[in-house]
Amino acid sequence: MSTLCGKDILRSDLLSDGELELILSTASRFERALTAGDRLTNMQGQVLATLFFEPSTRTRLSFETAMLRLGGQVITMADPKTSSSAKGESLVDSMRTVEGYADVIVIRHPRKGSAQEAADAVAVPVINAGDGTGQHPTQALLDVYTMQKEKGALEGLTVTLAGDLKNGRTVHLLVYLLARSGVRLLFVSPPGLEMPAAITADLKKLGAEISEGGDLAAAMRRSDVLYVTRIQRERFEDPAAYERLSGSYVVDRAMIQQAKPGISIMHPLPRVDEITAEVDDYEGAAYFRQAANGVPVRMALLALVTGRN
Amino acid sequence: MSTLCGKDILRSDLLSDGELELILSTASRFERALTAGDRLTNMQGQVLATLFFEPSTRTRLSFETAMLRLGGQVITMADPKTSSSAKGESLVDSMRTVEGYADVIVIRHPRKGSAQEAADAVAVPVINAGDGTGQHPTQALLDVYTMQKEKGALEGLTVTLAGDLKNGRTVHLLVYLLARSGVRLLFVSPPGLEMPAAITADLKKLGAEISEGGDLAAAMRRSDVLYVTRIQRERFEDPAAYERLSGSYVVDRAMIQQAKPGISIMHPLPRVDEITAEVDDYEGAAYFRQAANGVPVRMALLALVTGRN
Amino acid sequence: MSTLCGKDILRSDLLSDGELELILSTASRFERALTAGDRLTNMQGQVLATLFFEPSTRTRLSFETAMLRLGGQVITMADPKTSSSAKGESLVDSMRTVEGYADVIVIRHPRKGSAQEAADAVAVPVINAGDGTGQHPTQALLDVYTMQKEKGALEGLTVTLAGDLKNGRTVHLLVYLLARSGVRLLFVSPPGLEMPAAITADLKKLGAEISEGGDLAAAMRRSDVLYVTRIQRERFEDPAAYERLSGSYVVDRAMIQQAKPGISIMHPLPRVDEITAEVDDYEGAAYFRQAANGVPVRMALLALVTGRN
Repeated sequence: MSTLCGKDILRSDLLSDGELELILSTASRFERALTAGDRLTNMQGQVLATLFFEPSTRTRLSFETAMLRLGGQVITMADPKTSSSAKGESLVDSMRTVEGYADVIVIRHPRKGSAQEAADAVAVPVINAGDGTGQHPTQALLDVYTMQKEKGALEGLTVTLAGDLKNGRTVHLLVYLLARSGVRLLFVSPPGLEMPAAITADLKKLGAEISEGGDLAAAMRRSDVLYVTRIQRERFEDPAAYERLSGSYVVDRAMIQQAKPGISIMHPLPRVDEITAEVDDYEGAAYFRQAANGVPVRMALLALVTGRN
Repeated sequence: MSTLCGKDILRSDLLSDGELELILSTASRFERALTAGDRLTNMQGQVLATLFFEPSTRTRLSFETAMLRLGGQVITMADPKTSSSAKGESLVDSMRTVEGYADVIVIRHPRKGSAQEAADAVAVPVINAGDGTGQHPTQALLDVYTMQKEKGALEGLTVTLAGDLKNGRTVHLLVYLLARSGVRLLFVSPPGLEMPAAITADLKKLGAEISEGGDLAAAMRRSDVLYVTRIQRERFEDPAAYERLSGSYVVDRAMIQQAKPGISIMHPLPRVDEITAEVDDYEGAAYFRQAANGVPVRMALLALVTGRN
Repeated sequence: MSTLCGKDILRSDLLSDGELELILSTASRFERALTAGDRLTNMQGQVLATLFFEPSTRTRLSFETAMLRLGGQVITMADPKTSSSAKGESLVDSMRTVEGYADVIVIRHPRKGSAQEAADAVAVPVINAGDGTGQHPTQALLDVYTMQKEKGALEGLTVTLAGDLKNGRTVHLLVYLLARSGVRLLFVSPPGLEMPAAITADLKKLGAEISEGGDLAAAMRRSDVLYVTRIQRERFEDPAAYERLSGSYVVDRAMIQQAKPGISIMHPLPRVDEITAEVDDYEGAAYFRQAANGVPVRMALLALVTGRN
């Protein structure tokens, strides 16, 4: 039987099928308890430290809510400017200090590889809440959880990922989780922002069915799920090129009318202009439910790594 | 019977007499429980999100204390610089995300009307902790609660409001609550900072007894309560004019000696120079008690809107 | 019998022997409970306010953990830029406001004497978490607690204090606590950063055995404990002088091999270059245990001043 007790959650790509299944089923169980209004006490007497060396209110509040909903408590460093690292302290020293306070640590840090370094420094479980261009495993997990919940099962689904697939940390990891669950993948992105060839080759080696290119409307006609990512203005040297390209990746009600009936629309948020506000009322608009799913998924992770599931 | 269950608290002027009475009596009950050292569990298992898009430590800590004293838990965004709105996210999207975490949301935002917009976006109750030049209903409510507690009853009291009555958001709303409770109002302010004529006209239409002008000492001789507000230096183009005017609105012990015996001195705080420190020892100096009253009043609101009173 | 109920903890030098003993024994009892996994409820229903007018994440998180481990709750002002003092409010007014929210207050403030001023303003117990060049009593107490725990007893120990002894607030107070416990003291510091003569004279008057000067290696050969402090670059006008001097105060494994066997290495953290990372694996490297000891020591103080030990 799979267990995650005492383990760190640093990468989504190293989770075994059994571990992935354990996380999703535990999240589902916690979600049912929340819906039923049960008061959980799994983490009673435990302290979570959320260390955000790079601000991210959304992710931090989601983790903190997860801990509180399990009956635990939270200490938080939300602003790196007030931290000892501003005085020149190493990440290892910061972690070894906080290890003296907390039973489990969630860390977000702008440097790739920092989560692994942080986890190696301490004996308590560490959960990576994003390490720069590295990983953000809890986002990938809540994305998978959301697709499963919206669609019943992953196997056999067709999922379009649209937008900036070159720089999207989350998307790079999500596709592996989807590919191994038997999802057909369509990649739609502006020229220059395609999914890295190495990842596509990798996925094909794993037996995944992948299509690339084409326009968004065509992809939506074939897809059960559309996963939209932000196209960041700062990636373009030419503002006009940004305006032209980003405009053709805006999802509105008209596009949904032409899409496969019942298509689910997902987005990791925050969105800026990629999905128009009128889409919010569409029943397949899943992005706010997706954000809310972060709570039971993170509850599952906190409880599993501390052996309190 | 009045109930506030499931309602938002966005404005103080739309509360019915029954709702106002319910809030004040619930606050009074909670205050007695706190004084008795009872441990309350009304909000056990519930999470409050305090979203401060504009910092206000005093108001935030008061709400958080209220939630904790009721046995609930808190997640907080104290600094707008770390929020997703800094990445261009709309207020509506921020609210719909946090709705996935919290059972009740307190919001402070620099833009007038933002609290209404925030409340419209979500199904959970929203409490306005100040929306720019808009409203700050919990301040008005704790002011009324304080006067009632200090004086026994509002009806028949004479209350002087002194200072900048033109720009004082709280004062503009407080006067309506007082007028409809049968309080006689005296307005004393420097030239150019008078109570807006529209409000005075409005109050008179409601049957309120109002006097304007005159000096502060004269008003204090007739008043049961003096409510002092800050005169902000930045409202004056000429610094000398500020110095001259603000000086005549400083309350000291000598002025209290000439005032109606037992006069209560109130101030929404923070004060700068409007009341001298020597006044603090006067038994009618109510401003710190007034600040403390924010806790039971906010406890009442949190419990009432979630149906846990 | 000593009691600290209702008292403020502002200075370490005014604690009686009985009070010191009470703090250390209470900390020890709480540490055993934590190790045994007991869930403590001493502070249930109580609220701690941590007011940091100067950021210090390490100290703040340590106090907050202490409160949470005792079953209490926390409200926090971590960033002075968001406080009312930024609007010109006096420290006294801020304290009298927060007194309306919290049962005990921890304050850190950049101005010497501010903790006393803060404590004088309110009826609830106040704990000084550092007042500029003034005191930082909980650091001195956790240092003493650590030495006692690492070495069994203080009496008869030889302790070297190395580094900048001129500007080290904590060290100035720690030495009094050590001297009166029968510890022999060696002071080793770069020219110009010696322990102030007034303190040395004072300690000798108290009967303490003190040596000064000499090199670090020689001191380490005679010492049971080495307490290292940071030499701050900004104390030197000439960068080359800093490099030359600080280099001779770096503790590495080679130096430990030449030291008295079993020597304990302490440091208040954060460290920058004073102790090399290779020392961390040395079993006498006590600095991270020292940081962790802050939790039971602060638990003891919180429980004692509120009469909930």
